[in-house]
Amino acid sequence: MYDMSPSQAAESSLRALDRTPVVLVGVRPAAEVTDRVGPRRFLHGGPPVELAELPGPMRGALAGALVFEGDARDVEEAAAIVERGEVELAPAHHAGGVGAMAGIVTPRMPVVVVSGGGRTAFSPLNEGLGRALRFGSNDAETLARLRWLAEVAGPLLDEAIAASEEVQMMEMIAEGLRRGDECHNRNVASSAALLARLAAAVARRARGPQDAADVLAYMAGNRHFFLAFSISAAKLVCDAAHGIPGSPVVTAIAGNGRRLGIRVSGAGERWFTAPAPLGEPRFFEGYDASQATPTMGDSFITETAGFGAFALTAAPAITSFIGGSVQRSRKLVAEMRSICAGTSERLLVPSEGFAGTPLGIDVRRVAELGVAPVVNNGLAHRDAGVGQVGAGITRLPLEPFAEAAAAVSTEDSRVPAS
Amino acid sequence: MYDMSPSQAAESSLRALDRTPVVLVGVRPAAEVTDRVGPRRFLHGGPPVELAELPGPMRGALAGALVFEGDARDVEEAAAIVERGEVELAPAHHAGGVGAMAGIVTPRMPVVVVSGGGRTAFSPLNEGLGRALRFGSNDAETLARLRWLAEVAGPLLDEAIAASEEVQMMEMIAEGLRRGDECHNRNVASSAALLARLAAAVARRARGPQDAADVLAYMAGNRHFFLAFSISAAKLVCDAAHGIPGSPVVTAIAGNGRRLGIRVSGAGERWFTAPAPLGEPRFFEGYDASQATPTMGDSFITETAGFGAFALTAAPAITSFIGGSVQRSRKLVAEMRSICAGTSERLLVPSEGFAGTPLGIDVRRVAELGVAPVVNNGLAHRDAGVGQVGAGITRLPLEPFAEAAAAVSTEDSRVPAS
Repeated sequence: MYDMSPSQAAESSLRALDRTPVVLVGVRPAAEVTDRVGPRRFLHGGPPVELAELPGPMRGALAGALVFEGDARDVEEAAAIVERGEVELAPAHHAGGVGAMAGIVTPRMPVVVVSGGGRTAFSPLNEGLGRALRFGSNDAETLARLRWLAEVAGPLLDEAIAASEEVQMMEMIAEGLRRGDECHNRNVASSAALLARLAAAVARRARGPQDAADVLAYMAGNRHFFLAFSISAAKLVCDAAHGIPGSPVVTAIAGNGRRLGIRVSGAGERWFTAPAPLGEPRFFEGYDASQATPTMGDSFITETAGFGAFALTAAPAITSFIGGSVQRSRKLVAEMRSICAGTSERLLVPSEGFAGTPLGIDVRRVAELGVAPVVNNGLAHRDAGVGQVGAGITRLPLEPFAEAAAAVSTEDSRVPAS
Repeated sequence: MYDMSPSQAAESSLRALDRTPVVLVGVRPAAEVTDRVGPRRFLHGGPPVELAELPGPMRGALAGALVFEGDARDVEEAAAIVERGEVELAPAHHAGGVGAMAGIVTPRMPVVVVSGGGRTAFSPLNEGLGRALRFGSNDAETLARLRWLAEVAGPLLDEAIAASEEVQMMEMIAEGLRRGDECHNRNVASSAALLARLAAAVARRARGPQDAADVLAYMAGNRHFFLAFSISAAKLVCDAAHGIPGSPVVTAIAGNGRRLGIRVSGAGERWFTAPAPLGEPRFFEGYDASQATPTMGDSFITETAGFGAFALTAAPAITSFIGGSVQRSRKLVAEMRSICAGTSERLLVPSEGFAGTPLGIDVRRVAELGVAPVVNNGLAHRDAGVGQVGAGITRLPLEPFAEAAAAVSTEDSRVPAS
């Protein structure tokens, strides 16, 4: 492996991104999937963050998580536990998982599990719109929904997946691009498609018609139900592309509300960070930039894996949500092509004559051209539990990419493949 | 009304096409919806056709229909009944309905029912892929599925629709355009969307989990499940636009496998016909033009109502099925704009900057410009029961439009509104 040129190494990462098969395995309690969670040991979204600097939504989510796990009787007791530093947090990314927004993962939390190429990846089931732990909510409604997800929806979906025809996740994402989703900020058609795939088995396997109806209504009522599945799949292919000595290909982009960080295939476990950007999102009515938490969560793994903003031309309807226009989308995707190692052979954009999406961000190209990647971004309110306040295209800071480019070009950053 | 100029009359038809609300009512036996069906009195697709000249698929479907209704013990007995002329056929269009392909409607057949503006329209539930009555199949499998549709799926869907939140059909079609469907030859995202809307109620109302699972699997396994709903909605708005004295707007386009016919708002019940075209479809592997039945069925009501081929730019992925390219789609839709009375305000195409689809084919413009409408066309094998052999864009013959233009411009074609 030491003989590979940086371009060969990039090519090798690109192949892993584009060819690793990803099969939907099931929905399991997180503790069954990773030993990185346990009593008062949880995961979070983004690069490493200290307890003392947790942004509002992550702090609120952590308190809710402690109550959900039975580590605290109420959020006050939970807050005291956090205050005393008696809880351990690690990035979900370090455990082979990803979490949207706050991205808190606890042992009992039901996570989507995918596998392929000898790897596994996971992400918590999306809680749906309204009050949700991922935005820092920790009230009774949020905790009751988490319990229902853990006790009813998760186990039933797990059974339904096992009883259904195998779901090839990258094929579902590719079909999503044909249905006007980019599978990051627009998941509405893919959510319905996955519901359609699983509905009969949900009806057949449920303990009773009420459970079946509740789980089907939960899936149907959540335009982002598919997101947990799409980011799990993206995480898996990105992990497959990681750890190739000398490879300048980005394998993670994530925010913790304070810092934006990237990981690069040839730079091992190191995160290259910069202050988390806010971008220029379209704010929902009644909100403005002063109320938003900067970039937070692991869902930029979609762009890292060649969809999301990198497939913006597949989702023209999204402009009514995140702003912009078809022309701007075309320009942005073309720009992303200039900084990528190649083009996907399985994620094709019908409106671009079935051209593949740009795939495999090459930090050398980013640094050389001074063109930073863009991501589709959903922004949380800075206060715990308020929810999403806006969405839009965010241009990432150049610094982490430039730093990573320098790091992978030096010999000592190259680590032997295990 | 006699004071309206042709342009005012066209405007009036356009408003009816674009503003008539369409609500999904349920799924009922056809006999509950129209008194134009009864013992040995059925409906068919397209303009009027004589028993003696029925094309292969329609003849096969009619024989199957007689067995399904208990009018004959087997298809041989059924064929003898047809031979003796002891069955009465009328166009579904004359009964306020539409049928895809052969379009046979019998009293017990479950039909999708929509209503709005004081009107009702209907179309038989789509049987799914494989052997189907609409392609002329009449074997045991086809008849068993029809019975199951009549006895299980129809009644359960009817209950589920009644128990679900009201479905506004034109909003579903508009959302379909945002999900890459044009809702004629591509219905896959809208079928999943409708399944998602009804799934919880299906699970709750079913007699047992097996019925629920079977009905959900039927919906999920049929990429054209939504077609019966989209053409019912289209028929309703077209009927609302019909019968306006002097209006040159087309309110039906349909084929019977022999002739292609159109109806025009200001020309009463008259059909203007020409030999049914075959177009230049993309044939499925193993088939060619010599095996195809020319244009057949009522589903061109979608183009009449401003979607289907008229919204081709919303469905770039369809080119992998019907041929063509994004550029050709843009050209065709632009061309359709030149022969339409106006633009839809509720059917918007995201990839065209949310421009409305061309709406309300004006026969005067067609005649003046010599530009005939195009339709998305699915072609049946000429032999009963084989199924679909191809699909593509079909340019309609000019003659019926020219004839209709002449007819609506003469005073005696103008009938007073009732």
